[in-house]
Amino acid sequence: MSVLKTLASALLKQKTNLLEANRKDLAVMEESNPLYDRLLLTEKRLQDISNHLLAINTLPSPLDKVLEKRTLPNGLELTKVTVPLGTVGVIYEARPNVTFDVFALCFKSGNRCVLKGGSDAKHSNKAIVSLIHDVLEECGVSKEMIRLLPSDRDAVIPLLEGKEDVDVIIPRGSHKLIKFVRENSRVPVIETGAGIVHTYVDKCFDPTIATNVILNAKTRRVSVCNALDTLVVHRDVVPSLTALLEPLIQHNVHIYADKIAHHALDYPSHLLHLATEEHFGTEFLDYKMSIKTVSSLEEALSHISNHSSKHSEAIISTDPTAIEQFLNKVDAAVVYANCSTAFTDGGEFGLGAEIGISTQKLHARGPMGLQELTSYKWVVIGSGQIRS
Amino acid sequence: MSVLKTLASALLKQKTNLLEANRKDLAVMEESNPLYDRLLLTEKRLQDISNHLLAINTLPSPLDKVLEKRTLPNGLELTKVTVPLGTVGVIYEARPNVTFDVFALCFKSGNRCVLKGGSDAKHSNKAIVSLIHDVLEECGVSKEMIRLLPSDRDAVIPLLEGKEDVDVIIPRGSHKLIKFVRENSRVPVIETGAGIVHTYVDKCFDPTIATNVILNAKTRRVSVCNALDTLVVHRDVVPSLTALLEPLIQHNVHIYADKIAHHALDYPSHLLHLATEEHFGTEFLDYKMSIKTVSSLEEALSHISNHSSKHSEAIISTDPTAIEQFLNKVDAAVVYANCSTAFTDGGEFGLGAEIGISTQKLHARGPMGLQELTSYKWVVIGSGQIRS
Repeated sequence: MSVLKTLASALLKQKTNLLEANRKDLAVMEESNPLYDRLLLTEKRLQDISNHLLAINTLPSPLDKVLEKRTLPNGLELTKVTVPLGTVGVIYEARPNVTFDVFALCFKSGNRCVLKGGSDAKHSNKAIVSLIHDVLEECGVSKEMIRLLPSDRDAVIPLLEGKEDVDVIIPRGSHKLIKFVRENSRVPVIETGAGIVHTYVDKCFDPTIATNVILNAKTRRVSVCNALDTLVVHRDVVPSLTALLEPLIQHNVHIYADKIAHHALDYPSHLLHLATEEHFGTEFLDYKMSIKTVSSLEEALSHISNHSSKHSEAIISTDPTAIEQFLNKVDAAVVYANCSTAFTDGGEFGLGAEIGISTQKLHARGPMGLQELTSYKWVVIGSGQIRS
Repeated sequence: MSVLKTLASALLKQKTNLLEANRKDLAVMEESNPLYDRLLLTEKRLQDISNHLLAINTLPSPLDKVLEKRTLPNGLELTKVTVPLGTVGVIYEARPNVTFDVFALCFKSGNRCVLKGGSDAKHSNKAIVSLIHDVLEECGVSKEMIRLLPSDRDAVIPLLEGKEDVDVIIPRGSHKLIKFVRENSRVPVIETGAGIVHTYVDKCFDPTIATNVILNAKTRRVSVCNALDTLVVHRDVVPSLTALLEPLIQHNVHIYADKIAHHALDYPSHLLHLATEEHFGTEFLDYKMSIKTVSSLEEALSHISNHSSKHSEAIISTDPTAIEQFLNKVDAAVVYANCSTAFTDGGEFGLGAEIGISTQKLHARGPMGLQELTSYKWVVIGSGQIRS
């Protein structure tokens, strides 16, 4: 039986142990801490994790895929074929489900993983990795496929310095964590996460689409990276703003509006604020949104270019020329026309699973699935060829 | 007329200026310095550069290529399309031809470039970039497409710290330069170059193929990264060693042989040395080669795995099973069977041109052409879709 399938049942059989270890971690955290819910494992959550492992198990393997194949004029047969990256280092915070998730994605893509979890989850992570080691042993696979580093902060330094022999480091977590990794790593890093997300409502637009999309992009889940931060509106849209934002009131969304929008907007006064520069280029991760008024598409593009984190950006417009310009000119991992930015997600894109959303341009951009955890090698078969 | 075409003729028209600037650089370098030849521009070399620019100009554009396209169940139209990386920083040493080359490759792939050349070539580089700026202006293209940083060493620090706003840094040059960049850059780096290259001669092999391939891989050009460094031989091959290496004598190749090979080999005594550990895992870049004897394919794989820089590795064998094992198990950018490692080159692989040979696994591996200077973005077109 396959490792992931075995693990999917083993974690249910061992749920008492896992939940007990998790309770030790929870015992030293205040329930009011926003991390508490992220740290919490429950029977239901273990069942979800088990199902997720089975789903990853059934995905097609990303390995040994022939990307190119040709015979050179000198007869050499050249094949470019996918291979694992090697060893993937992941640094994350208090979410024990990530331990299962990262292992499953790395294992399915042929990679070893080295994990540095948060100290808040140390008992949970130890129990999970111990369970995975048992399953690997049972299946006759090397335990080296997953290695858990000590949970104290110092353990991250040798990892960043390349002493753990990893091929890439993926930080998952807060902006602060990602910044720390970027500034201190000598190993290639894939940055994930930070999303300063704009939606631009052009002068010609469908009000129903705009209303629904703004509501969805802002309030579906405010804590995720694809949530809307700044609504950019053409000045001709300003008279419609009150209607467009009306559904946000019931979610108590605070609006930080520039002067023009602030003046025009009829919105509950305790939720309406005059924006200052700090409200643009901010990832709120909260029921908060800023509004910037512009007098042209060009000005919208320029505002986005100056404040975007190149994650997800959208236009709402009925003008095909404006849409085309926006999609061409905005430099971001995902650019949208007439829909919610909430779709930036590996599952939604049909990648089956996701290890993160890359906000850089090297290697992978946007949602990263199994394929993005591979590299390639060139295989060249000859019959004595030498180069002149 | 296109920028690259205009530049190809302009550099010939301005050859007097360019050669004069180059003479200023040459004037302060000893002719005996190995860099002298790399620094030197001549009429012939300028003609070659001009031809190379024309060749790059005719290559197909790597931009706007649709990598994936599908309609999601919710009707969203998803397209993954190639885009430029943005701004490419290149740090290199005393080779003014690289200035033309990097500009041409970056320009053709839609990227701006920021160059930090060696101080040895400062007058040459200034004259070249000034010429390129004139051509860009003449063609109505922004001069920002190429920027030359001051040639002193301090100028590299803000570049590595990300203050020049580059998306990637590619160091081209010595091992020392590449190490410095890797250890000090906060910007993503693509490492190029270092090649510790092995060729393994299996117990069943074709002696003609082995003799020709060893000679070619070692002596075609010793200063390049794909040149052979260590010959690994099965112990059954040891009696044939003298014949296999005989053609190397006329090139005065120094052999650093392990005990078994040293004992068996009939080779001019002033060229034959007993190997010490330092001769394995060394990139010689010279008429020098080490020999390691092994008693099995597994031992060969293990030696290569411990000493390789994952650049180019080859097997010479007539045994299909051994070949398959070698090609599968060796982790390198390019793995070869029965041919010379000298083929690791963008031109040879049909990429048209090359900005370097990546020895890392992220983003690009092996020869990097125009395609490897691109990223991609996801373009999503909807009709009001929101995520539930």
